[in-house]
Amino acid sequence: MAVVSVSVVPIGTGSTSVSPYVARCQKVLEGEEGIKFQLTPMATIIEGELDAVLDVIKKLHNVPFDEGAKRVLTTIIVDDRKDKPISMQGKLDSVRSKL
Amino acid sequence: MAVVSVSVVPIGTGSTSVSPYVARCQKVLEGEEGIKFQLTPMATIIEGELDAVLDVIKKLHNVPFDEGAKRVLTTIIVDDRKDKPISMQGKLDSVRSKL
Amino acid sequence: MAVVSVSVVPIGTGSTSVSPYVARCQKVLEGEEGIKFQLTPMATIIEGELDAVLDVIKKLHNVPFDEGAKRVLTTIIVDDRKDKPISMQGKLDSVRSKL
Amino acid sequence: MAVVSVSVVPIGTGSTSVSPYVARCQKVLEGEEGIKFQLTPMATIIEGELDAVLDVIKKLHNVPFDEGAKRVLTTIIVDDRKDKPISMQGKLDSVRSKL
Repeated sequence: MAVVSVSVVPIGTGSTSVSPYVARCQKVLEGEEGIKFQLTPMATIIEGELDAVLDVIKKLHNVPFDEGAKRVLTTIIVDDRKDKPISMQGKLDSVRSKL
Repeated sequence: MAVVSVSVVPIGTGSTSVSPYVARCQKVLEGEEGIKFQLTPMATIIEGELDAVLDVIKKLHNVPFDEGAKRVLTTIIVDDRKDKPISMQGKLDSVRSKL
Repeated sequence: MAVVSVSVVPIGTGSTSVSPYVARCQKVLEGEEGIKFQLTPMATIIEGELDAVLDVIKKLHNVPFDEGAKRVLTTIIVDDRKDKPISMQGKLDSVRSKL
Repeated sequence: MAVVSVSVVPIGTGSTSVSPYVARCQKVLEGEEGIKFQLTPMATIIEGELDAVLDVIKKLHNVPFDEGAKRVLTTIIVDDRKDKPISMQGKLDSVRSKL
């Protein structure tokens, strides 16, 4: 399992608003099985098998194109570990236990 | 005001655990005035005047060095707009109003 | 075609040196067909069909694990456009023509 | 000294072209002392004292606003080490010596 941050931003749409695209991406994510996801103010974080997560991210990357955008900038950060299970909640718990 | 994502990662510490450094960064953030911040599973998001936020980020970047790390990789994403106020809560509300 | 930046960093190896992993990634890239790539001081940039590029990036992401690392942080930035061809050289030329 | 990658992208300009802004950023960089910089197809890489580099990056971040953009997304990746000198050329040499 990996925890992956993704941000999909259309370039050149003529509007500074990105939220309609983010909302469409959330709907795509709601239709996916085998992953967990969480919206944050700067990115959406997805937890799941890396291949599955990257397949979903390809769909998210295409959302602005489907809505008419001509250029898309997608930023993906993958946190993957093999020594122990990794999860969104586990990462937060690990920090909070040290506060 | 800007909304800024920051992740500070030590390289070469010999431990795969990063949470002690993140916890120290949270404590630094708690001591700062004039900003808001929120921990997520992949980054900490900070809201405030850009200069103030970048000053805080310099402190966060130095946390692993203070703890003995010899190399630090810090990833910063700045979302800044002049046409209307921007905030962490406002960004989430804007997406949720479209769901 | 897309132009994609990728950085693969092992966490917790006990060495601040990352270049052995980057060198291994370059060798993987040299064995790939259908893509172009370029090493920079902060990332490797890959040009090709997005699906092909993401398949290669999965291989690069696994390089540190194959070398014994237990945690890997991979940062991917995808620049993709549908209104005209995009290439590494074209992007540089476009900036230089304006200098 | 640190090596820092920066990408400054205007959102909502109505044009998919980003190169005019990148060219303006290159001109700002040419007027700066105490740093080295290098344009790549996905980012500009800057080498120098971290405080000086971040001061320059604030100027680059403002370039699209000065040109009329209303929203700017700036991505900054800082690679900083204390165990030995770090430079753009040194990082490339270190990888190439292992190929």
